[in-house]
Amino acid sequence: MTELTEIRVPYNDLVHELATILAKLGFSEDRALRAARLFADASRDGVYSHGVNRFPRFVRALRNGVVDPKATPVVISQFGALERWDGRLGPGMLNAQQCMDRAIALSRANGIGCVALANTNHWMRGGNYGWQAADAGVIGICWTNTMPNLPAWGASDPRLGNNPVIIAVPRAQGHVVLDMAMSQFSYGAIESYRLKGQPLPVPGGFTVDGELTTDPGAIEKSYRPLPIGYWKGSGLALMLDLLASVLSGGKATHQIPADPERETGLSQVFIAIAPSLIGPPERMSQIADAVIENLRGSKYSGAAVRYPGEQVLKTRSENLSRGIPINAAIWNDIHKL
Amino acid sequence: MTELTEIRVPYNDLVHELATILAKLGFSEDRALRAARLFADASRDGVYSHGVNRFPRFVRALRNGVVDPKATPVVISQFGALERWDGRLGPGMLNAQQCMDRAIALSRANGIGCVALANTNHWMRGGNYGWQAADAGVIGICWTNTMPNLPAWGASDPRLGNNPVIIAVPRAQGHVVLDMAMSQFSYGAIESYRLKGQPLPVPGGFTVDGELTTDPGAIEKSYRPLPIGYWKGSGLALMLDLLASVLSGGKATHQIPADPERETGLSQVFIAIAPSLIGPPERMSQIADAVIENLRGSKYSGAAVRYPGEQVLKTRSENLSRGIPINAAIWNDIHKL
Repeated sequence: MTELTEIRVPYNDLVHELATILAKLGFSEDRALRAARLFADASRDGVYSHGVNRFPRFVRALRNGVVDPKATPVVISQFGALERWDGRLGPGMLNAQQCMDRAIALSRANGIGCVALANTNHWMRGGNYGWQAADAGVIGICWTNTMPNLPAWGASDPRLGNNPVIIAVPRAQGHVVLDMAMSQFSYGAIESYRLKGQPLPVPGGFTVDGELTTDPGAIEKSYRPLPIGYWKGSGLALMLDLLASVLSGGKATHQIPADPERETGLSQVFIAIAPSLIGPPERMSQIADAVIENLRGSKYSGAAVRYPGEQVLKTRSENLSRGIPINAAIWNDIHKL
Repeated sequence: MTELTEIRVPYNDLVHELATILAKLGFSEDRALRAARLFADASRDGVYSHGVNRFPRFVRALRNGVVDPKATPVVISQFGALERWDGRLGPGMLNAQQCMDRAIALSRANGIGCVALANTNHWMRGGNYGWQAADAGVIGICWTNTMPNLPAWGASDPRLGNNPVIIAVPRAQGHVVLDMAMSQFSYGAIESYRLKGQPLPVPGGFTVDGELTTDPGAIEKSYRPLPIGYWKGSGLALMLDLLASVLSGGKATHQIPADPERETGLSQVFIAIAPSLIGPPERMSQIADAVIENLRGSKYSGAAVRYPGEQVLKTRSENLSRGIPINAAIWNDIHKL
């Protein structure tokens, strides 16, 4: 990115603009609006890398046939609270939203529900589906596999995905939502440290010689980002891929094209749990509030200790009042789409 | 540990010895045998820290009333595939085994099942319950909270638990089972590096001055082990505690006594998923085998890349044929119990 100027666009204008473009690209009006909102929501909540900044790449995926704008997911098999769906290579964010909705419905009928989705596309910001569950008053857990982009611990070639996992617990005072990938830093984050001329705050990968490094450029050269917790994140990334592919019957990471422009055929899992069906909801809130309260009481030397999702609410509020920040060059590109 | 001599005891003799002691301490014959097997299984599989080496501490917990040998778990509420149980402060390993059994039964009836357990005790080796699910042919996911033993990212006082999580995927050629805590190293592992006079292979915590360090002694002094992936493992540890306490209605980490001899009243979650109810089991095996096969093909410079659980099978086989290795001093102590 050479253009760092930022503009701010009101949320509704942004949604309208994106929906208009998607409608021209083959989306029905309703689906264009839903997809546009999911892009706008990510930027609204501060996840710029998977929000509007990602929109031009999504349009390329539509144009080159990686994403079929008209394809809708279908249920393949079901047993009680467990279902397998086929995403038919439709828009990943719409498939994911529908499958989390289905998991929520299953949890209302069975206490817990699980939808495994094969043949889908990048869901953009995974956190959206965690917030969706929490907004519905249930616990949401979901994860996706990705193309190979992370070497296993001890390996030098990327055979694991960085497989983001989302865990959301509803809370009246603000949902607690964790949204994290299995690499210590995303390539996007590594790039932005390099552009700022800064080292990573902690080791984030290896040099081509296999030494741990905080040099962002060295990691971009080696293609060897570091799994969180070294061998531990490496193991967890493998398990998430195994679970997603085994449950959905779809592709595992090693079968997904290792090219961001061609990454497709992903496998995902959506779990919703409705604790209010087995205990008083107010007790659930008390427990969650007390956990957060205790965390906030931590002794610290720098910035206060935050809970996952806390910053999202602040950013959301600011961006809704001041407008959603968008890179000016990207906004310009979007108008030419 | 000053006595490092190791002896080897045949598996059945070991089970018999431990069961005899437990029977004297108030366990019924059947429960004594089940608990003894779970201790022996951990050592058999190479998890010595949570196997027989831990037995003397467990006996102390029985004698000081932390663990009630006669208490059995009871179901508190249920809705479909989701249940809440009360462990009534009984032996943690028996409660956990029973709750995973119940989750497995729920998964056979509903595709997926979830049991949340409050008021339980330390389950010793969590991996046992993953292997239990996988041996039953289903996916097993479980986690526990712990006493506060891990500072949140940015904090200096331990308010999070290291909350181990287990994920198990069944496979004819060897189950894939991840069993990991949220700290980069356990205190047991940190101690053993110090005793060997070795630095940790990667930073494992902070000095009292808040600097990251590989010096095991410095971390024992600061009580500041490092969460895996820094802020990421910190967030994940919080979520696991929130999920366990909210779902079970039991205690969260901040309510659990921060003393290994008094740690009690834990909350745990057991989830089982039966993918063979929504797709052909042989396809599930093919997918899992292909994922492992691909991982093994990784380029590496040192030891071959292993999958989670791979080493367990090798250790199990060796220990079953040569006898289970036990620290001689501990074995001596056990005979005096």
